[in-house]
Amino acid sequence: MPYVNIKVTGGKEAPTAAQKAELIKRTTQMLFDVLGKKPSTTVVVIDEVDLDNWGMGGEVISVYRAKAAAEAKG
Amino acid sequence: MPYVNIKVTGGKEAPTAAQKAELIKRTTQMLFDVLGKKPSTTVVVIDEVDLDNWGMGGEVISVYRAKAAAEAKG
Amino acid sequence: MPYVNIKVTGGKEAPTAAQKAELIKRTTQMLFDVLGKKPSTTVVVIDEVDLDNWGMGGEVISVYRAKAAAEAKG
Amino acid sequence: MPYVNIKVTGGKEAPTAAQKAELIKRTTQMLFDVLGKKPSTTVVVIDEVDLDNWGMGGEVISVYRAKAAAEAKG
Amino acid sequence: MPYVNIKVTGGKEAPTAAQKAELIKRTTQMLFDVLGKKPSTTVVVIDEVDLDNWGMGGEVISVYRAKAAAEAKG
Amino acid sequence: MPYVNIKVTGGKEAPTAAQKAELIKRTTQMLFDVLGKKPSTTVVVIDEVDLDNWGMGGEVISVYRAKAAAEAKG
Repeated sequence: MPYVNIKVTGGKEAPTAAQKAELIKRTTQMLFDVLGKKPSTTVVVIDEVDLDNWGMGGEVISVYRAKAAAEAKG
Repeated sequence: MPYVNIKVTGGKEAPTAAQKAELIKRTTQMLFDVLGKKPSTTVVVIDEVDLDNWGMGGEVISVYRAKAAAEAKG
Repeated sequence: MPYVNIKVTGGKEAPTAAQKAELIKRTTQMLFDVLGKKPSTTVVVIDEVDLDNWGMGGEVISVYRAKAAAEAKG
Repeated sequence: MPYVNIKVTGGKEAPTAAQKAELIKRTTQMLFDVLGKKPSTTVVVIDEVDLDNWGMGGEVISVYRAKAAAEAKG
Repeated sequence: MPYVNIKVTGGKEAPTAAQKAELIKRTTQMLFDVLGKKPSTTVVVIDEVDLDNWGMGGEVISVYRAKAAAEAKG
Repeated sequence: MPYVNIKVTGGKEAPTAAQKAELIKRTTQMLFDVLGKKPSTTVVVIDEVDLDNWGMGGEVISVYRAKAAAEAKG
């Protein structure tokens, strides 16, 4: 009966159908293992968010990543 | 002033424009009938979710339905 | 299999248990009537939001309502 | 560490990439200014909702706006 | 950078702090294992929903469960 | 007509009523400045999330912060 919403970047980074099936399977299993929730009524919804529509650190995610990579290089 | 979000499967199962208008109308009416909420400020947002992105019972919804149908047949 | 989230004001305006049961019943019926969705797997989650945490028109909802009432009186 | 979700109408009304970047920047700055939240971990997700999927006042948004415009003209 | 929202029943059924920590750990690990998402920026938010505020099959969840249990007994 | 949901940590870190009013005001102003959205129909909902219910980097947020602080000290 739990409801889980997973938001990840989409477009060229979108998960494959097999990866989405794996996320659904493992999320449902986790809720059974940790909380004893009956798998039959666990609902999982995956949202794929465009790279332009996701921000972190005040920047669109693509810019955020480029800066983080530059910093890591020093 | 209530906010309602309705998530249903999309793609080939997506509701028509007329069905979406009907969901908006009935949801708003319900909030007036049950809670006395003024219709003018009730907001309804409908999300259409790809079949691959919806899971139930640990399976992608298409697989879940096929199994449920098989079980029903015995 | 649809998922519906209803957000209304809580605290002293919170719906009663009977009103919440009615919202769940009518929402599920609506999705069957309009889209043919099987009631057994429709999930409804109601969130009660504190009056201080809800804004409209750039104001906290209590201030928004007081102004709207004043305007209505002219 | 805050998480902000902004839903606006999409399609022909969709914000441009530059407008989305501006929303992300200003939202993150606001959370720093008002609550002192460290910008580096603030997440912003923008959802663009089809005009057919957004309702207000019991109507699909396009109908709602047409009526509001007609009323304003009087 | 993914964002995951987990909704479960709260109140007397609320997960313990240790269970919540375990959900956060496993969800983050899953997103690394399945999609290669860097754990440091994965955000998980757990919502505990009152039993009165959760509906399934057109009923408040407590009634839904009582009926399901009665049916199972035959 | 936009809808904005802001999630921040609550409990002892909860924003004050004045801070929440400021978030609502600035969010609504931002949507007018950047996208020209009419303030009167912009809705903002603020959720306060318990520290135990928020995870980042695979840890409950309090643990995540303690580790980040320790690392910063070196």
